[in-house]
Amino acid sequence: MRENRVKTIWSEGGEVITGWLGIPSSVSAELMAQQGWDALTIDLQHGATDYVDALPMLQAISTTNTTPMVRVPWNDPAIIGKVLDAGAYGVICPMVNTRAEAEAFVKACRYAPVGTRSAGPLRASLYGGSDYIKEANKTIITMAMIETEEAVNNLEDILKTPELDAIFVGPSDLSLSMGESAGFDPRFPKVYDAIKYIAETCKKTDVIPGIHCGSVEYGVEMREMGYRFMAFLSDFRMLQQAVSQALPAFRAGQPIA
Amino acid sequence: MRENRVKTIWSEGGEVITGWLGIPSSVSAELMAQQGWDALTIDLQHGATDYVDALPMLQAISTTNTTPMVRVPWNDPAIIGKVLDAGAYGVICPMVNTRAEAEAFVKACRYAPVGTRSAGPLRASLYGGSDYIKEANKTIITMAMIETEEAVNNLEDILKTPELDAIFVGPSDLSLSMGESAGFDPRFPKVYDAIKYIAETCKKTDVIPGIHCGSVEYGVEMREMGYRFMAFLSDFRMLQQAVSQALPAFRAGQPIA
Amino acid sequence: MRENRVKTIWSEGGEVITGWLGIPSSVSAELMAQQGWDALTIDLQHGATDYVDALPMLQAISTTNTTPMVRVPWNDPAIIGKVLDAGAYGVICPMVNTRAEAEAFVKACRYAPVGTRSAGPLRASLYGGSDYIKEANKTIITMAMIETEEAVNNLEDILKTPELDAIFVGPSDLSLSMGESAGFDPRFPKVYDAIKYIAETCKKTDVIPGIHCGSVEYGVEMREMGYRFMAFLSDFRMLQQAVSQALPAFRAGQPIA
Amino acid sequence: MRENRVKTIWSEGGEVITGWLGIPSSVSAELMAQQGWDALTIDLQHGATDYVDALPMLQAISTTNTTPMVRVPWNDPAIIGKVLDAGAYGVICPMVNTRAEAEAFVKACRYAPVGTRSAGPLRASLYGGSDYIKEANKTIITMAMIETEEAVNNLEDILKTPELDAIFVGPSDLSLSMGESAGFDPRFPKVYDAIKYIAETCKKTDVIPGIHCGSVEYGVEMREMGYRFMAFLSDFRMLQQAVSQALPAFRAGQPIA
Amino acid sequence: MRENRVKTIWSEGGEVITGWLGIPSSVSAELMAQQGWDALTIDLQHGATDYVDALPMLQAISTTNTTPMVRVPWNDPAIIGKVLDAGAYGVICPMVNTRAEAEAFVKACRYAPVGTRSAGPLRASLYGGSDYIKEANKTIITMAMIETEEAVNNLEDILKTPELDAIFVGPSDLSLSMGESAGFDPRFPKVYDAIKYIAETCKKTDVIPGIHCGSVEYGVEMREMGYRFMAFLSDFRMLQQAVSQALPAFRAGQPIA
Amino acid sequence: MRENRVKTIWSEGGEVITGWLGIPSSVSAELMAQQGWDALTIDLQHGATDYVDALPMLQAISTTNTTPMVRVPWNDPAIIGKVLDAGAYGVICPMVNTRAEAEAFVKACRYAPVGTRSAGPLRASLYGGSDYIKEANKTIITMAMIETEEAVNNLEDILKTPELDAIFVGPSDLSLSMGESAGFDPRFPKVYDAIKYIAETCKKTDVIPGIHCGSVEYGVEMREMGYRFMAFLSDFRMLQQAVSQALPAFRAGQPIA
Repeated sequence: MRENRVKTIWSEGGEVITGWLGIPSSVSAELMAQQGWDALTIDLQHGATDYVDALPMLQAISTTNTTPMVRVPWNDPAIIGKVLDAGAYGVICPMVNTRAEAEAFVKACRYAPVGTRSAGPLRASLYGGSDYIKEANKTIITMAMIETEEAVNNLEDILKTPELDAIFVGPSDLSLSMGESAGFDPRFPKVYDAIKYIAETCKKTDVIPGIHCGSVEYGVEMREMGYRFMAFLSDFRMLQQAVSQALPAFRAGQPIA
Repeated sequence: MRENRVKTIWSEGGEVITGWLGIPSSVSAELMAQQGWDALTIDLQHGATDYVDALPMLQAISTTNTTPMVRVPWNDPAIIGKVLDAGAYGVICPMVNTRAEAEAFVKACRYAPVGTRSAGPLRASLYGGSDYIKEANKTIITMAMIETEEAVNNLEDILKTPELDAIFVGPSDLSLSMGESAGFDPRFPKVYDAIKYIAETCKKTDVIPGIHCGSVEYGVEMREMGYRFMAFLSDFRMLQQAVSQALPAFRAGQPIA
Repeated sequence: MRENRVKTIWSEGGEVITGWLGIPSSVSAELMAQQGWDALTIDLQHGATDYVDALPMLQAISTTNTTPMVRVPWNDPAIIGKVLDAGAYGVICPMVNTRAEAEAFVKACRYAPVGTRSAGPLRASLYGGSDYIKEANKTIITMAMIETEEAVNNLEDILKTPELDAIFVGPSDLSLSMGESAGFDPRFPKVYDAIKYIAETCKKTDVIPGIHCGSVEYGVEMREMGYRFMAFLSDFRMLQQAVSQALPAFRAGQPIA
Repeated sequence: MRENRVKTIWSEGGEVITGWLGIPSSVSAELMAQQGWDALTIDLQHGATDYVDALPMLQAISTTNTTPMVRVPWNDPAIIGKVLDAGAYGVICPMVNTRAEAEAFVKACRYAPVGTRSAGPLRASLYGGSDYIKEANKTIITMAMIETEEAVNNLEDILKTPELDAIFVGPSDLSLSMGESAGFDPRFPKVYDAIKYIAETCKKTDVIPGIHCGSVEYGVEMREMGYRFMAFLSDFRMLQQAVSQALPAFRAGQPIA
Repeated sequence: MRENRVKTIWSEGGEVITGWLGIPSSVSAELMAQQGWDALTIDLQHGATDYVDALPMLQAISTTNTTPMVRVPWNDPAIIGKVLDAGAYGVICPMVNTRAEAEAFVKACRYAPVGTRSAGPLRASLYGGSDYIKEANKTIITMAMIETEEAVNNLEDILKTPELDAIFVGPSDLSLSMGESAGFDPRFPKVYDAIKYIAETCKKTDVIPGIHCGSVEYGVEMREMGYRFMAFLSDFRMLQQAVSQALPAFRAGQPIA
Repeated sequence: MRENRVKTIWSEGGEVITGWLGIPSSVSAELMAQQGWDALTIDLQHGATDYVDALPMLQAISTTNTTPMVRVPWNDPAIIGKVLDAGAYGVICPMVNTRAEAEAFVKACRYAPVGTRSAGPLRASLYGGSDYIKEANKTIITMAMIETEEAVNNLEDILKTPELDAIFVGPSDLSLSMGESAGFDPRFPKVYDAIKYIAETCKKTDVIPGIHCGSVEYGVEMREMGYRFMAFLSDFRMLQQAVSQALPAFRAGQPIA
């Protein structure tokens, strides 16, 4: 089965930077795939993308050796199975707040006897190889989102879930659930402490901590804190930022510094 | 955040007439949006429309000031979150039969601390404005369908659900569940009494009653009964009716009166 | 090869009424196909429909015995070949103003030795049958649009084009080209006279005259004038009319008479 | 309501062979529909197909009298309702392991008072007829997948589920759940015995046994064992096999025997 | 008919900055439309976009008052008519090298008696208004691309084409045709001189000169040279640039200056 | 720029076998790409595929090192430019009957100064590399179809067209144009002689002869005759054949030999 480069980077002690795809187009996906991200994550939850868009996006990513990952809209075995069969090499599951939810998620990603994923890897075996079913349990990444106060409280228990490879902090929802306003790169003391606590708690386990970042500065800071899977903005937000800088500069007749 | 005109009309004591979109096309959606409906509801349950169709339909509606609403296929936080992030200003949820189901539905529509909706309003913030997350809980309409005898029996309890803005009667399913045949504009005594009872019970609360109507006559009657959100047929059924009148007239050589 | 019912009706001396599809959806197409039109014409010129939309619309029509026709966007052998291979049983070609243009159009619709259509009827042979290539030249309808003053002046010459089965009057463009305003059902004397002249000139040949009508009344009048292929509005316009009658009636509380 | 030919064949004591659609295209679906299968099953679980693809595929199948069926991705009333409204005449539900799961599945397929399916058969009434709601409970096939050891253990109980028309063995998952490797046409003694046991247990009831086969040989064997609904490979696998035979033969200069 | 803001800006002596859409998605189109560009141009020639993608992109642009324009793939009345009927308020036509080509292009954009555009503005009348056909000739912008040495040689003649509103320099093709390498913002003396000559020659006429720019700096320079319609990169190129700056910075641990 | 493997095989004296894609799906395209064909040709002429389908199919092919080619619907610079910009590494152009048509075709495929292709290789530069524009003229294959008696008569002249890399015999149209019936693998003496004549005439030039074959047997024969680019059936026809063999065998209870 084709290697999962994200796992390889982790096993070598490195950190992974993933691009984030919110625009439902295989053209922007292929453009992003050519830019050198370690992984690309197709967002089926908050992006504007559905399964039918994701399939050609996964194909576009597969024109490179960038690792394809998908954030599913919910902890639901139907869509988890579909994106895995479509060739995702990792699944990010939102709103995993308890050990039971973490176990349900992981089971949906693993074939028997470990889990209950149904066998039928159509595109997955084109992409992964003919030994896909045999090797998938060891290759596919399971990543649970920690994005509520409840999840932080249950963190140690969640991290003990067998076959859970990684967790992923959703800073915006975490802030909301702690009574603060939503947004990237929070510095509210309570939220920031939780983010630190998550990194440190993960270090005591084999579970890799990840987080979504809104700036290079914050991303670098998170890496130093111990995060080893950093998502950076999204194609949507990067395009939005680029225009918001260039257009006023053009109107003002002053090139961007 | 952009105003929700349906809420404004209600707050001024008025009634809302919504068109109903069953044809999965942004072209028919834009045509409908130009006709002056107060709102348009994209039907993801019984229409032939899925999320990927709904997104450009929401964009087409947004070329006007018609309020965009979506009926989701089920009481499922995944699709509720997706249509809200896509810019729906109201969600109609089918088959809400108990207080617990009503609460689950409402929570999926509201950000913390009121609910558990996850933050990430991609298109929603383009449409609603940059303060979307702050204002969404006050702006988005939650509307639970009352369409079984069980729901009618639990009505008073359901109406007490915090943050439930409105209910919507599904006359066809209500008739079926009461042992009658399906169809628009039922006059079976038991069903009609239930429809009356729903309107009257709502009047004692802040919850707005709505209903799906199959004719102008019945719609006017429902408005008089106290309903304040009237859906009228659908693009599909209106086109079907129009052809069924014009084509035989053409063959017979007799223009429609 | 499957019969072309439009040709059969003509051969029995009857008239054909075709529905007109401007909404790019196989759902509205199937709805229309169930209504009893003799034919349905997918409009690739002025509708909002492209080849990729037309293919499932042709399949939707093929669930009934309604004859599928396509108006192509231009007198171009590429798109003519594609819609024929996709199973269209008739092609309406816009803006045929001269005998040479008529001949070019017809050639693109016919296999050698009559014309230059390239052989490769993929879906066409699923729909038409395995003897498609052998029988297609006799079965497929070629219909040239007469919609400019120039075309009217060249009419007798155009009608002599071998293998031209029918002509189709575009009243809106004809009016524009004669200095009048666009619109259905013109009664400007010069335009009306031309429409009459076309019908009468066709009667002296084997070429069937057709016309696009905007009302039952005008359609009946055209039939009496000798037109034997009448298009009636479109799904788009019929839906628009239906809403423009029902919605004000609903607001006014007065059911439609 | 239009007849369900699969039910008719069963009622006459015959067996049904269904093609299996994994390629998300209405073109390959129509090609398959023309080949004489008794039924075609669109695979929304392991294929690469989603609801938006399935709709035109159902229309393509409806150009013939092949019975359209759908395997849904999960035991979820939302998608079950949507594929039925889109015109599926039978639903195959994966991973039905207990009587409770079987009952939930069946209820989602039946209108009140038998089940809880919501009324609104848009395309289904175009395809099935205007009496669809009245007749659907008797016409639509419910087929639960038996594909885990747990399901085999619960088989007798599952088969007593009212309104369950058929079961369908998933040999690959069944093998996995019994500790063997995945794949078509298993001959592992324990798995093979279970497959035999399922056929024999069904014979004592009115529930029809079905199974997915990977070769004509195994299929014929299963038919002899008592299976009466045989799925054969898929369009995807048949195309893959055909190329894997022809291409090396071409390179070697040796026509296929 | 709805105002053409580009024409208004020009009539007030101002310059227009247009965004450029190469990603075939209505989501990125709506994002771009919200950023304050005067116009957005959908590129059907070199982007990855076709008519079916362009339609919802035009709808997405129409949620704002940004003027929608389309670059067609070729000087072909079929696609020119289709994008105008879809609501484009301006057409940019590539490779207009002679007066005859310019006239053919302009005629395809204008209704009789000025041109030969066929009447049937489906979406265009939803967007533009019910008086669309009457006002379109005055409202729609015709813009011919000057992008070969031949075109520069014929410039004075081309500029005399009646109803030609503007020209648009394609610097990359112009450089290629003059024996230089392709790319944005050319400074090859011969090419630069031609670009200057074009601006100066236009000043003597009513035809507005436009040009595609690859940097704010060059754009500002062109504006000073007299260009009054400046396209700036594209969504595709802006996203590519943004990633190519952010990702290495992230890896290096050094935020972008 | 990425190598064109078809050219490499030819330069090494070898023959190329291309699969043929008539099903408009990136899923079947990726399946085919995994099977070891030297090239895959997407058929935009007689398949059911349009540009919007072709784009993700090209991406799917690009997940392997199979060379992507496209048969365009017509000798039209608009679509030729679009498929090249989308990353096609070779273009097959139908119905090239004269030297002038061959020259027009070749010019549309080449940048200045050789031809008139417009510069803007969006996806092409992602796939081919950043030096695409510089190297494309040497890398892209131009292949003209010889499929009429007229073309055979003009063959020697056509073969002298500068920059024409290959020709491709369309046996079905060639047979039709010579008064015989359409179909693969013709053995009509006159047609067969022409096919032989084409191979022999090409041998005296640098132009590679290609042909479409319907069986391994005929393909092998053509290779021996000197053809060096052999297309084999299509995904559509291979699937059709596979079912037409398996299904009757299943019904008869006799496995395929």
